[in-house]
Amino acid sequence: MSELTIWTLDWVPQGPRGFVRDLRLRWACEEAGLPYKVQTIPFDDRETNHLARQPFGQVPFLSDGELQLFESGACLIHLAHQSDQLMPKDAAGQAHTLQWVFAALNSIEMVSVPWWFLTISGNRDNELTGWVDKRLTQLEAVLSQRDWLAGDRFTVADLLMADVLRIPQVRAVGHRPASEAYVVRLTERPAFRKAHADQIAHFELADKKRA
Amino acid sequence: MSELTIWTLDWVPQGPRGFVRDLRLRWACEEAGLPYKVQTIPFDDRETNHLARQPFGQVPFLSDGELQLFESGACLIHLAHQSDQLMPKDAAGQAHTLQWVFAALNSIEMVSVPWWFLTISGNRDNELTGWVDKRLTQLEAVLSQRDWLAGDRFTVADLLMADVLRIPQVRAVGHRPASEAYVVRLTERPAFRKAHADQIAHFELADKKRA
Ligand SMILES: N[C@@H](CCC(=O)N[C@@H](CS)C(=O)NCC(=O)O)C(=O)O
Ligand SMILES: N[C@@H](CCC(=O)N[C@@H](CS)C(=O)NCC(=O)O)C(=O)O
Repeated sequence: MSELTIWTLDWVPQGPRGFVRDLRLRWACEEAGLPYKVQTIPFDDRETNHLARQPFGQVPFLSDGELQLFESGACLIHLAHQSDQLMPKDAAGQAHTLQWVFAALNSIEMVSVPWWFLTISGNRDNELTGWVDKRLTQLEAVLSQRDWLAGDRFTVADLLMADVLRIPQVRAVGHRPASEAYVVRLTERPAFRKAHADQIAHFELADKKRA
Repeated sequence: MSELTIWTLDWVPQGPRGFVRDLRLRWACEEAGLPYKVQTIPFDDRETNHLARQPFGQVPFLSDGELQLFESGACLIHLAHQSDQLMPKDAAGQAHTLQWVFAALNSIEMVSVPWWFLTISGNRDNELTGWVDKRLTQLEAVLSQRDWLAGDRFTVADLLMADVLRIPQVRAVGHRPASEAYVVRLTERPAFRKAHADQIAHFELADKKRA
């Protein structure tokens, strides 16, 4: 029996609330019905004290008994091996789930996040705009053909891709009806809503403690 | 018995030669002694004809008998499951290998590639410079403490991280002796040298056929 703890920050400013990546792990656990605890590291210590556990000073990380893991992608795959709700059992289904987890992080997020970072740094019309637009269009072509990325069913790859796509600035890049419907459909799942509400509540409680 | 085919482009310009990501898969197969074939898709068709096999019009992709896979990260993990040379067999060793594969792609390459893209687009002093510098410094701290990223031995995570770090512009970001020694050490491995030489020869042959 695994003993899961999802680690996140004790507090973050309003902006990122609802988007901190611990949500990916909460969501996966909620989908699978895996019991978990949430623990925190201090926001102000993130670049000093926890580099031993997350060498880039970030969250989330996961502990499962003795095992400690960072990178949300790796944590999601680790969780997926613990539940049929998150990934099919057959080899091809697992390989395709893994493929789309990497695609979410290394084909879409690899450009959408730096692009978003440039736009919020005041460089709205930047050199990454064409690239992000192209990737989202290519993904729209995929999502116009099918409901799920891998194995013809919900997997952790959909959870992750939806989380990458649901950033408001990314949704606003252009009108892509299949991608938009996909994001709406995924974020209407009870497990997402619970994970999202829990994250919001977690940071609200922190405000109260600080006050 | 698996039947591996690594798919790449039939031709690319001089610039990317030696850096096309099929090299990651060639390198892994060479380390493991896994037999493989190389097949190509036409450079000029990359955004039309092979979207069914790689929805972003890119290479590499891998076929293993009936199974087709894209995303170099997913292909490397698939290969790693076929050989002890590429990944330990124990659960913790596998989880940590996966973690560092994601770190290479989603913590380092996610900023180094967009940063590199901005610099070659003429925007040398761009908003991503501080971010890439920070990540490379954090990784330098890790590589100053140990020789290998996961499981105290060579894994596919080192192969991938070295491939991400060996980009000349990335190596030139600042003086980071542990990271530099790591890249040198990894790229001196016979399996890397063979994979690299084979990729160069592959594109040189294509020049001759075009001439
Ligand atoms: N590649 C990492 C990215 C993690 C990440 O971006 N974490 C953010 C929160 S969502 C963070 O910790 N930011 C605080 C900081 O960088 O100081 C993953 O997927 O786990
Ligand atoms: N995330 C992908 C990236 C693949 C990639 O960047 N491929 C390049 C070659 S190294 C490519 O096909 N470029 C041609 C193009 O984009 O048109 C992976 O890791 O497989």
